[in-house]
Amino acid sequence: MAGNSFGTVFRLTTFGESHGKGLGGVIDGCPAGLKIDLEAIQKDLDRRRPGQSAIVTQRKESDQVQFYSGIFEGETTGTPIGFLIPNADQKSKDYSHIAGTYRPSHADYTYDQKYGKRDYRGGGRSSARETVCRVVAGAIAKQLLGDVSIQAYVSQVGNMALDTPYGELNLEEAENNPVRCPDPEMASQMEAHIREVRKSGDTIGGVVSCVIRGVPAGWGEPVFDKLHACLGGAMLSINAVKGFEYGSGFQGVTMRGSEHNDAFNPDGSTRTNHSGGVQGGISNGMDIYFRVAFKPVATLLQSYDTIDKEGREVTVQGKGRHDPCVVPRAVPIVEAMAALVLADMSLLARLSQI
Amino acid sequence: MAGNSFGTVFRLTTFGESHGKGLGGVIDGCPAGLKIDLEAIQKDLDRRRPGQSAIVTQRKESDQVQFYSGIFEGETTGTPIGFLIPNADQKSKDYSHIAGTYRPSHADYTYDQKYGKRDYRGGGRSSARETVCRVVAGAIAKQLLGDVSIQAYVSQVGNMALDTPYGELNLEEAENNPVRCPDPEMASQMEAHIREVRKSGDTIGGVVSCVIRGVPAGWGEPVFDKLHACLGGAMLSINAVKGFEYGSGFQGVTMRGSEHNDAFNPDGSTRTNHSGGVQGGISNGMDIYFRVAFKPVATLLQSYDTIDKEGREVTVQGKGRHDPCVVPRAVPIVEAMAALVLADMSLLARLSQI
Amino acid sequence: MAGNSFGTVFRLTTFGESHGKGLGGVIDGCPAGLKIDLEAIQKDLDRRRPGQSAIVTQRKESDQVQFYSGIFEGETTGTPIGFLIPNADQKSKDYSHIAGTYRPSHADYTYDQKYGKRDYRGGGRSSARETVCRVVAGAIAKQLLGDVSIQAYVSQVGNMALDTPYGELNLEEAENNPVRCPDPEMASQMEAHIREVRKSGDTIGGVVSCVIRGVPAGWGEPVFDKLHACLGGAMLSINAVKGFEYGSGFQGVTMRGSEHNDAFNPDGSTRTNHSGGVQGGISNGMDIYFRVAFKPVATLLQSYDTIDKEGREVTVQGKGRHDPCVVPRAVPIVEAMAALVLADMSLLARLSQI
Amino acid sequence: MAGNSFGTVFRLTTFGESHGKGLGGVIDGCPAGLKIDLEAIQKDLDRRRPGQSAIVTQRKESDQVQFYSGIFEGETTGTPIGFLIPNADQKSKDYSHIAGTYRPSHADYTYDQKYGKRDYRGGGRSSARETVCRVVAGAIAKQLLGDVSIQAYVSQVGNMALDTPYGELNLEEAENNPVRCPDPEMASQMEAHIREVRKSGDTIGGVVSCVIRGVPAGWGEPVFDKLHACLGGAMLSINAVKGFEYGSGFQGVTMRGSEHNDAFNPDGSTRTNHSGGVQGGISNGMDIYFRVAFKPVATLLQSYDTIDKEGREVTVQGKGRHDPCVVPRAVPIVEAMAALVLADMSLLARLSQI
Repeated sequence: MAGNSFGTVFRLTTFGESHGKGLGGVIDGCPAGLKIDLEAIQKDLDRRRPGQSAIVTQRKESDQVQFYSGIFEGETTGTPIGFLIPNADQKSKDYSHIAGTYRPSHADYTYDQKYGKRDYRGGGRSSARETVCRVVAGAIAKQLLGDVSIQAYVSQVGNMALDTPYGELNLEEAENNPVRCPDPEMASQMEAHIREVRKSGDTIGGVVSCVIRGVPAGWGEPVFDKLHACLGGAMLSINAVKGFEYGSGFQGVTMRGSEHNDAFNPDGSTRTNHSGGVQGGISNGMDIYFRVAFKPVATLLQSYDTIDKEGREVTVQGKGRHDPCVVPRAVPIVEAMAALVLADMSLLARLSQI
Repeated sequence: MAGNSFGTVFRLTTFGESHGKGLGGVIDGCPAGLKIDLEAIQKDLDRRRPGQSAIVTQRKESDQVQFYSGIFEGETTGTPIGFLIPNADQKSKDYSHIAGTYRPSHADYTYDQKYGKRDYRGGGRSSARETVCRVVAGAIAKQLLGDVSIQAYVSQVGNMALDTPYGELNLEEAENNPVRCPDPEMASQMEAHIREVRKSGDTIGGVVSCVIRGVPAGWGEPVFDKLHACLGGAMLSINAVKGFEYGSGFQGVTMRGSEHNDAFNPDGSTRTNHSGGVQGGISNGMDIYFRVAFKPVATLLQSYDTIDKEGREVTVQGKGRHDPCVVPRAVPIVEAMAALVLADMSLLARLSQI
Repeated sequence: MAGNSFGTVFRLTTFGESHGKGLGGVIDGCPAGLKIDLEAIQKDLDRRRPGQSAIVTQRKESDQVQFYSGIFEGETTGTPIGFLIPNADQKSKDYSHIAGTYRPSHADYTYDQKYGKRDYRGGGRSSARETVCRVVAGAIAKQLLGDVSIQAYVSQVGNMALDTPYGELNLEEAENNPVRCPDPEMASQMEAHIREVRKSGDTIGGVVSCVIRGVPAGWGEPVFDKLHACLGGAMLSINAVKGFEYGSGFQGVTMRGSEHNDAFNPDGSTRTNHSGGVQGGISNGMDIYFRVAFKPVATLLQSYDTIDKEGREVTVQGKGRHDPCVVPRAVPIVEAMAALVLADMSLLARLSQI
Repeated sequence: MAGNSFGTVFRLTTFGESHGKGLGGVIDGCPAGLKIDLEAIQKDLDRRRPGQSAIVTQRKESDQVQFYSGIFEGETTGTPIGFLIPNADQKSKDYSHIAGTYRPSHADYTYDQKYGKRDYRGGGRSSARETVCRVVAGAIAKQLLGDVSIQAYVSQVGNMALDTPYGELNLEEAENNPVRCPDPEMASQMEAHIREVRKSGDTIGGVVSCVIRGVPAGWGEPVFDKLHACLGGAMLSINAVKGFEYGSGFQGVTMRGSEHNDAFNPDGSTRTNHSGGVQGGISNGMDIYFRVAFKPVATLLQSYDTIDKEGREVTVQGKGRHDPCVVPRAVPIVEAMAALVLADMSLLARLSQI
């Protein structure tokens, strides 16, 4: 209810702040008998980790996950999986300059309004560091999903947009460059752009696209918990996300129904896939694909005018170690949230018939 | 869990199919002591009702809501509010031609895959008729919200887009034309366009924009249940929705952080509002605004090729009484879902401090 | 959250008050493909119905259930089952004498404290009439449970206790007398006792025992949602219940572990069954049995002293049509709540292994 | 859903097994601004701790809780409180003799049936060690409850029952002896009895009574989540509990309504309190009191016959360090669960009126 749990059957509850002792979570509802590949979990953590390349934040975090329960002899036992990721780099000094001030477009002001107080050492609970727990749980969800593949990639940085349909891209290529764009040419342009933005102490937004293959027909709940509504809500819960569209998305608005409808093949597959793999909130067996818009990160390395708690105007010199563009590190987070939704839906699908 | 409930504290559960005896719902968690304006509820139902103008479906439904409980002497009692909307126009003959076939881009195929059977007389539970219950509950949620105003309007039909910022529009104007576009000139062009599309037996998509004023700072939960994530999930659960963006949305991607950040005024308000009234998932007291993309309705009045249950190719002549463009009737539905989210958040906000 | 829903997967939400237009509910999460026997549902309603014999309240209610959705061609469709039971006997005059006063040991006072107001025409939402919806849902749950048999019976009225172990009783016999005690001799003594109590305008308590056979090993969740904890919570939610015990119950307290432990047979069954069919919160395949204590009904047909809303002492002459002893009519309610718990657990059990 | 969370607003999720690296939990929904007394938490942990006296298990566990989040500068921040209790005494050798066998009246067999596997090093998740997390969360809940006092004590061991009404006892006295019985004379007899039982390698059951003072009128939800139903479900979720009764309980069955009804005083309090402080599921401001029955612990230090996984009969020599009687250590657990229920209800009570 207080919003720190996600999912119904496969359910993640997280805790922890950016500058506390650590972050962690509990995964409840993971069925027994799942072989756990710990290296695959760490690999996803490494894809999200600070310091992994020159174009992301240089904050030092090893992000090693420690499991406390729910896994025995390499397999899940059906009991809750508790885990912890200690915070290594707790330089609260870095943030002393913002203790009494409200950073623009951060959650400082709104947390104070809601709770009457906040952990002023940093973003606290509103820090994107919280997503490290999502990546752990998402990596386990991926293992539960077996043959379902979930591949996210960067398709836009600022004005640079990769318009090639995903079917014509080699998505594996995305992991070969620090931007995580599957078009090497575009990737290097994006990288140069991000470097330039960083040099000016500024930040820039981007889009993460995601393609999910192998979901059978019949997943999703028909009314409020439509498959795409859950995916959308999940993506919008990631820090800095401003928009979500799936299938034909906002472009679909301009189409005629006769053009947009996906005609069936005799086997139930469809010739086109404007639906984005979901019809009436339920998967139809086709690829599920969607796009997630990320705003430019609010933390700048420039000086800016703002107010303090008493409403006095102050000028602050931005410092710290932050991402000039969040999308490269957001790729595994988008995948993780998609995996959490799908793992949940895969289990719910067991309940639809007698 | 099976997805027919929405909300945590202020919680709506709905039932009913398009061709059954009726639809209804239960609102649990509405606090006691709220004066209920029954006319205001009916007014919102009338805004959603078929047959209200020449450019919407001519299906005949009076959509009169009957309350069974939870309201006594004109006020809520704190107990669940049960209500029923009988189906008047149950012409199952209209649908006999599609009993054994799968209509493209409908939920026929996916329901059969999920449940092994379906009420083949019509869209059943996947029909947008289900949203009538949302409008009832949303109208009560609006009354609970008091001074918060929620105004949705049509901002795009096909390629015709109203780009004027909402602050420069007179939103009240939207209710003065059948399209529900607040710009009269654009409204009449859109109306002509919809008539033309209908004449060709086709359909067209559109965008509904929504503006919420008067939400105090401090509503929303910080991690998974961010205010905008709940709004987005809510909108994506409406039939035919393909995308959601709030604040700067997909456009925000192209901005620099220095440009996108909303500088504070001394009173905590902000000079710009790219954030769309939400920071870190919590309202900051500024206007909340968002856009919702609707695809063209899948039901056509043309002949089309499809398959039947056995996978045989068949040609079907589309008939029935459907909307050529869904957005005019979607306006009160968007408002209703926004109201449900906000009513819930307003109650949750009572729990954040001791 | 406001407490009008029960169950997680197989989930009932109810609404309605004793003196409103009707009561009803929504069952969400019943899997598709279940053949529904409407007569069996009505039969359970008749077992709960007022006026069924001389020793229960003579309030006139036909208790005919109307289904609005979720059942098509005699089978469930997987969508929510909405139902309504109109109130026939709305003699609000009967209750006019208590509008401004608080009846002792009723919920009048506590409802006013909680909600600031109440439907003073009767018990409103606190009336045992609310349980009619539980019986409808429970009857469907029984059908989902297939071969699991749930048999409740009256084992005590006042001081008259039937101590015979259930295994030595013919439980079918319980339905052959108005008390619903499976021992005919004891039944007629209990009946005479209830008549005598009624004659004096008084009421008397009782115990309902329940035996569940055919539950396979492996149902129940291990920590907070132990099978017996859910059964206990369910029983305690029935009006007038003061206690619950299962297996050896309060008597088990006096035993030694060496005596209480249930030794295994080679097939996993146990020689004794002090555990009551549940070990560690999970069913072990043996009979589940428990006892539920009901206090004497608070409504008397005597004059009594009490207070009004202003705290003034008043004397009231009790009238109306109430049960001198609630247990005969409580038998189908106990069964219904047990069925709801077990139906839920049977579905949850599908989720425990990959 | 998988049953490792408790509560709706004030919500505890736990993880961990008896022989893993540790146990822990997350408390979500604790309001911001609560001063946390860490010593009071540790004090309750010490009351539950093994080795605290000669009549409890001598297992070595320091049970020091480590908080990871949600508390800043001595106060809660409104964000989730994550905590960990490392397991100190992981002597898995102690349990090697039971890896392949099913101990009678334990959860070994049922876990295997449910999950297809289990952590055979000990009780795993079914161990009462899990309750250590409940005590942590309960201690915080007590602090949230402020002036509400929750006092549990041992009122029966085997056949030795303390029948004195709680109002005539000095409940503070309970903490002055290892049995936690407030009557010193009875306490020493009970202690002698437990020592004797232990000497024979056997175990014995008992009853814990609990008295709650200071709950205002108006807490509890009226239908399924009645205050006493939630208390009962909570108590029945504690290991080894077989029964629950509140107010007049099973004895109330034998009373007449005229005798059982609690007449009002002009101030709304009642002259008697057979209701146990709850009417219609909602607190009425009087003391809440209840009794919880615990069976004798299943682990014996005797040899016993049982079966192994293949259904072969085997004889096992019981060993290890277990409680001869669980009730002395159950006292703080009963209090903790009561506190969790009441903290939740206290927050829910904020939502009942506009």
